[in-house]
Amino acid sequence: MIIYSKNIYLENNKICGFIKVDKEKIVDIKECNRDLDCDYLKEYVSSELKWDSNDEIFDYSNLNIIPGFIDIHIHGWGTGSFWLEKSKESILEMKKYLPIEGVTSFLATSGADTKDEILGQIDAVNEAYEENQIGADLLGIHLEGPFINKEFKGMQNEENCILPNIDIMKSFYERQGKQGLIKLMTMAPELENSKEVAEFCKEKGIQLSVGHSAATFEQIKEMKEHGFSGFTHTFSGMKGMHHRELGVAGSALYFDDMYCEFAKQTGLTVKHEIFDIALRIKTSDKIILTTDCCGLAKTNKPWNHYVRRITIIPHEKGVMIKHYDGREEIIDNSNYENVRDIEMSYINSVKNVIKHSKVTIFDVIKMTSANPAKYINVFDKKGSIDINKDADLLVIDNDFNIIDTIVRGKVYDIK
Amino acid sequence: MIIYSKNIYLENNKICGFIKVDKEKIVDIKECNRDLDCDYLKEYVSSELKWDSNDEIFDYSNLNIIPGFIDIHIHGWGTGSFWLEKSKESILEMKKYLPIEGVTSFLATSGADTKDEILGQIDAVNEAYEENQIGADLLGIHLEGPFINKEFKGMQNEENCILPNIDIMKSFYERQGKQGLIKLMTMAPELENSKEVAEFCKEKGIQLSVGHSAATFEQIKEMKEHGFSGFTHTFSGMKGMHHRELGVAGSALYFDDMYCEFAKQTGLTVKHEIFDIALRIKTSDKIILTTDCCGLAKTNKPWNHYVRRITIIPHEKGVMIKHYDGREEIIDNSNYENVRDIEMSYINSVKNVIKHSKVTIFDVIKMTSANPAKYINVFDKKGSIDINKDADLLVIDNDFNIIDTIVRGKVYDIK
Repeated sequence: MIIYSKNIYLENNKICGFIKVDKEKIVDIKECNRDLDCDYLKEYVSSELKWDSNDEIFDYSNLNIIPGFIDIHIHGWGTGSFWLEKSKESILEMKKYLPIEGVTSFLATSGADTKDEILGQIDAVNEAYEENQIGADLLGIHLEGPFINKEFKGMQNEENCILPNIDIMKSFYERQGKQGLIKLMTMAPELENSKEVAEFCKEKGIQLSVGHSAATFEQIKEMKEHGFSGFTHTFSGMKGMHHRELGVAGSALYFDDMYCEFAKQTGLTVKHEIFDIALRIKTSDKIILTTDCCGLAKTNKPWNHYVRRITIIPHEKGVMIKHYDGREEIIDNSNYENVRDIEMSYINSVKNVIKHSKVTIFDVIKMTSANPAKYINVFDKKGSIDINKDADLLVIDNDFNIIDTIVRGKVYDIK
Repeated sequence: MIIYSKNIYLENNKICGFIKVDKEKIVDIKECNRDLDCDYLKEYVSSELKWDSNDEIFDYSNLNIIPGFIDIHIHGWGTGSFWLEKSKESILEMKKYLPIEGVTSFLATSGADTKDEILGQIDAVNEAYEENQIGADLLGIHLEGPFINKEFKGMQNEENCILPNIDIMKSFYERQGKQGLIKLMTMAPELENSKEVAEFCKEKGIQLSVGHSAATFEQIKEMKEHGFSGFTHTFSGMKGMHHRELGVAGSALYFDDMYCEFAKQTGLTVKHEIFDIALRIKTSDKIILTTDCCGLAKTNKPWNHYVRRITIIPHEKGVMIKHYDGREEIIDNSNYENVRDIEMSYINSVKNVIKHSKVTIFDVIKMTSANPAKYINVFDKKGSIDINKDADLLVIDNDFNIIDTIVRGKVYDIK
């Protein structure tokens, strides 16, 4: 395929020009500083670019082409919950519907569960990876726990928040097989034995993130040297900032070489103004947007969401949403359109960021694609529009509405 | 007097040149782009500048000339405590010793005391102002209270933290006489009737600062419109920042048109890293350095400083400092050199900022002089090196050691 647009966002500049895609990869990019009439595109491609003019040309002239979003913290989405269902099928459901929301690749994210459950989830990721079904690209697994601090468990199961254990970590590592799909590990660095586990992860190229943690500034300062390079859902599930002890939140703002991951910007969990403070101090170079969505429509037990003031309850016809004010809704959770709005999607979170903070499109690209790709070490194939990278692209209008999602070289069509 | 230096820091640029001072004012500034030999200065002044060569020339060629520090939050210093002694004499003691520490003008700062005590303090300020003794310039009074929130009283007397009262405010205002010495008022904007008092202050040109406050983000957002333009000792004595409610601390970071005053940077009350976070987000354009010193050597009652882990106790020979670890020191509190180090001086606080944050000399000038002058509306005569402004200058070496302090046109000599 050949893509034409006047607004192709490369990593550091915008060009008017052409992207040539062969199979799943971007194989060439050419700038063109003339305004081209749509009737003339084919001729230009063949006579000026000397590219095969039988390739289908997609004319997105006035639209914008940006790299697809990479969600490195997503437990579930829509009709699939890897966290709650823990199956290959749940991942396949996520893969299927994420491109609609702009997500072209992701890390299936586990939580604090038993060792055996997590091993089962690693198996599920391995299987889904092998299956290679069309849809958002499964990059691997983000282990959010089990080595996290009970004191800041948030919505994790307390009984499964355990001390770092090198044997357990090794069993996870070995189970992933040769694909090396464990890309990211959220851990509380203040816990006993965290250094040993961190050193193991660092050696194996698993990125470490501080999360569900009560660490002090000094502990984080020390553990940075052992591989921690960022913070999981900054501000949530961590020791807050105080002027005499920075805690985890203050350390996240302070260390300018560490990334801050933020969950979906609903403005409920983290106020827009707090996100804005973080953005101003960290700059878009060190912010990563994720959703931390759970696929709550697939819950197998009543789920109390105190911030949103709802309880989500399994129901014979799907799922029931019980609002704190007494209202009840019953939803068929096998139908994507029905469950789509239960949680905020990646693209809607991005729109909220644009609405509440001063950001350029380059800032958005960094926070949604380049930074997460760099963080989990896949920037060689994802995270920017560049030759030899996967053709994961979003076609958006000026209001950030998604017109087309291109996943590994194909315009995504769910049917 | 005529001052020559290769490093004269004007508001936005550094020049090599001459400052001409007549009586208390800067009357001319001339740039000179040649390197002048010290023997040649007199000739240059007379032949090139056509200035009176009988004026004494101060050759500070390789030193730096910056505007004097303006401390808008200082209760006491060294051998005088306006807060505790509440007398004209206490202010005169402060005036006498502050120039040694780089402070060339200040606001004598009261606390939460009874109405009658505060009225007495306003009288003392009026009297000290009339006396016009040589020393740091008394710019007026900063009323830190009494309209502050008991919940965040800090070291203020709880029984004197009262609700805003327009009659009491008017009695303060009337007592100040025609000099208009009430320049700044710290108040908790969430308290009942604060709007009425704020509107009165705004109309009368009294700057309002949020302090000792439990206000929410929404309350501060509203009260900004009623004259609040800054925050008193940011982070201390205020509702902290949380990601679901910014509180006072979060609002201080968020509102980029509001000033953040910081007390002396010992690193104990507000960690250096927290100050650095604030500096990075607010920039030096909106930070004001103060000391919030109290003149603790003049305490009339035992004073427990839990952050510093000492108790300061009146003693027949002066004052006793009792450390939490059991050590005791007895100090003659009538001798400045003896008490100088009981609290951290303005210049030492500045040195700490330079040590722990990336700041230029221009940043320092803004935070110590231009910003406080603008904030309390005296920038027409203070806060920068400019023609028609008071000649309040510091001569410093490159390590920020004070070589000379020039107070209203004279090199300050304490003898």
